[in-house]
Amino acid sequence: MGSTEDLEYPQVILQYSSGFLVSKVMFTACELGVFDLLLESGKPLSSDAIAAHLGTSTTGMERLLDACVGLKLLEVELTREGALYRNTEISNIYLTKSSPKSQYHIMMYYSNTVYLCWHYLADAVREGRNQYDRAFGISSADPFGAMYRSEEEMLKFMAGQNSVWSICGRDVLSAFDLSPFKQIYDLGGGGGALARECVSLYPDSKVTIYDLPQVVQVAKEQFVPPEECRIAFHEGDFFNDLIPEAELYILSKILHDWDDDKCRQLLTKVYRACKPGGGVLLVESLLNEDRSGPLETQLYSMNMLVQTEGKERTAAEYSKLLEAAGFGGVQVKRTGKLYDAVLGRK
Amino acid sequence: MGSTEDLEYPQVILQYSSGFLVSKVMFTACELGVFDLLLESGKPLSSDAIAAHLGTSTTGMERLLDACVGLKLLEVELTREGALYRNTEISNIYLTKSSPKSQYHIMMYYSNTVYLCWHYLADAVREGRNQYDRAFGISSADPFGAMYRSEEEMLKFMAGQNSVWSICGRDVLSAFDLSPFKQIYDLGGGGGALARECVSLYPDSKVTIYDLPQVVQVAKEQFVPPEECRIAFHEGDFFNDLIPEAELYILSKILHDWDDDKCRQLLTKVYRACKPGGGVLLVESLLNEDRSGPLETQLYSMNMLVQTEGKERTAAEYSKLLEAAGFGGVQVKRTGKLYDAVLGRK
Repeated sequence: MGSTEDLEYPQVILQYSSGFLVSKVMFTACELGVFDLLLESGKPLSSDAIAAHLGTSTTGMERLLDACVGLKLLEVELTREGALYRNTEISNIYLTKSSPKSQYHIMMYYSNTVYLCWHYLADAVREGRNQYDRAFGISSADPFGAMYRSEEEMLKFMAGQNSVWSICGRDVLSAFDLSPFKQIYDLGGGGGALARECVSLYPDSKVTIYDLPQVVQVAKEQFVPPEECRIAFHEGDFFNDLIPEAELYILSKILHDWDDDKCRQLLTKVYRACKPGGGVLLVESLLNEDRSGPLETQLYSMNMLVQTEGKERTAAEYSKLLEAAGFGGVQVKRTGKLYDAVLGRK
Repeated sequence: MGSTEDLEYPQVILQYSSGFLVSKVMFTACELGVFDLLLESGKPLSSDAIAAHLGTSTTGMERLLDACVGLKLLEVELTREGALYRNTEISNIYLTKSSPKSQYHIMMYYSNTVYLCWHYLADAVREGRNQYDRAFGISSADPFGAMYRSEEEMLKFMAGQNSVWSICGRDVLSAFDLSPFKQIYDLGGGGGALARECVSLYPDSKVTIYDLPQVVQVAKEQFVPPEECRIAFHEGDFFNDLIPEAELYILSKILHDWDDDKCRQLLTKVYRACKPGGGVLLVESLLNEDRSGPLETQLYSMNMLVQTEGKERTAAEYSKLLEAAGFGGVQVKRTGKLYDAVLGRK
């Protein structure tokens, strides 16, 4: 970057330009079921066979497979019968639907919803607000009304969030020793993957997922097994309804959806509900104080502009919000992965 | 890739997922004129000042600038008056409108046209055809009719192609010694940047840009200065109209728009028109014979699916097409940049 080489030929600019092509190739191979088929088949397949199985054109499939080879998501072997494709290990683990660490659902959410919202990024920057109206013709006044505009969209979002916790959940929950807290509320806990990670890591804890009624219903029916008796549910809107007393409140990717005023309002409510000696755990992607990065978090902050009323923040900004609500002894742990942890105590 | 580290935490998958965010941040900063303003101002500016100058929200602009810092397209300095932003050298050279190597126009084409077509990549792979109907509600039967659906779109496309030749033109034209060829036709020469590079590199040559009447008109009015007497124009459709006699024909990014049948048809016409001893120069991005890459070319081949009737090809495939039309002594030169050169002789 800024090297003589890049100044003569802008490799990095070309790479950034092709970023959306790369994303869409991976998303599309997931969507069409390429990685699932190659996992199930147990042997390398030709592009013709893959196209036939998945009901696609051969000319499109062949190129899609080759682009996946270039991305090292597939391997190709040239044989006498032609080119044969197989999954790489990383694709088996992260891109197949059936894998416990599958990122399939978050990719479908990115590919079908986020990608289209981002087509209007210039408008979002001009106007300083989210772009549901331009992307989907729906009102942007209530971001979660927009995000949950259909059960299908809500399911996609919940499943997507669950994928994230399959790779980041353990790190954020083990950033601090949470074993002293037995009664835990996960505010906006959605599909429950973080709650499940929590009761697995802290077997004496009981976690209540507090979310909108329609979210709780789907979480019960489709995501959290009924035999998991350490997880309970509470239906409500935590801005407008009562928040019950507990020892720990988890706010995971909640504050980043809202502006500072709403964050203070919510944290003040949580502080009042919290048992003395209890606390609040914020799970968020932290920006560096000097604006240098992390790039991923900076990009997510733009996404908050495009999709919500919020933004990503620095550790100092979260500390200030917590302290304004009454919390003290704030501790910050960066995990080195996408999401970090901030703990405040009452 | 496939390293233990990636298997435990899929950094590369997350990077591919964010590719479209990266592209859109760069495209949007270009579109809103961030790099132009910072070049013109001659001094670092605050996000408030930039937002005010460019008529955008401050909350959106601040995040856009910070994301550009993460991408190393901007530098930020924290001062007593707050954060001040300036261009990096690479942005001055490639992302400002006024720079001779500006990639601004190709980025606008990518951001506003290609990005939306690629939203329908899964459909393109299923159907094996371009996606103008889904993306823009226009017939996809005639790709260039679709691409040139308005003068604005045509201008964007021509200016975009010119940007490409500002960084790759010299390499493809110096891949072979073309000085023996004085009379040159550039078939589909569009905005003329490659023709201008050609007469600059080979001062004794005369290049005729052969393109559709509406393209030629715009090229004359807006792209090629009238005092450039070594460049002439010929209006026509090279599939249906006469191709005049010449010593060398340049087909730069032409064959990749069409299927093998149409390529053979065009090359046969070119062969018949060509003076004995003359030749044809194909300028294309070459795929490796073993399907391993280059990634950029594999992605472009997918783009040909989404936008045209063609595909990218290997050197062997181009040689075969040339030989089927009668050309011989085929030579291939890879430039190491985006576009390569293949020369056939009559």
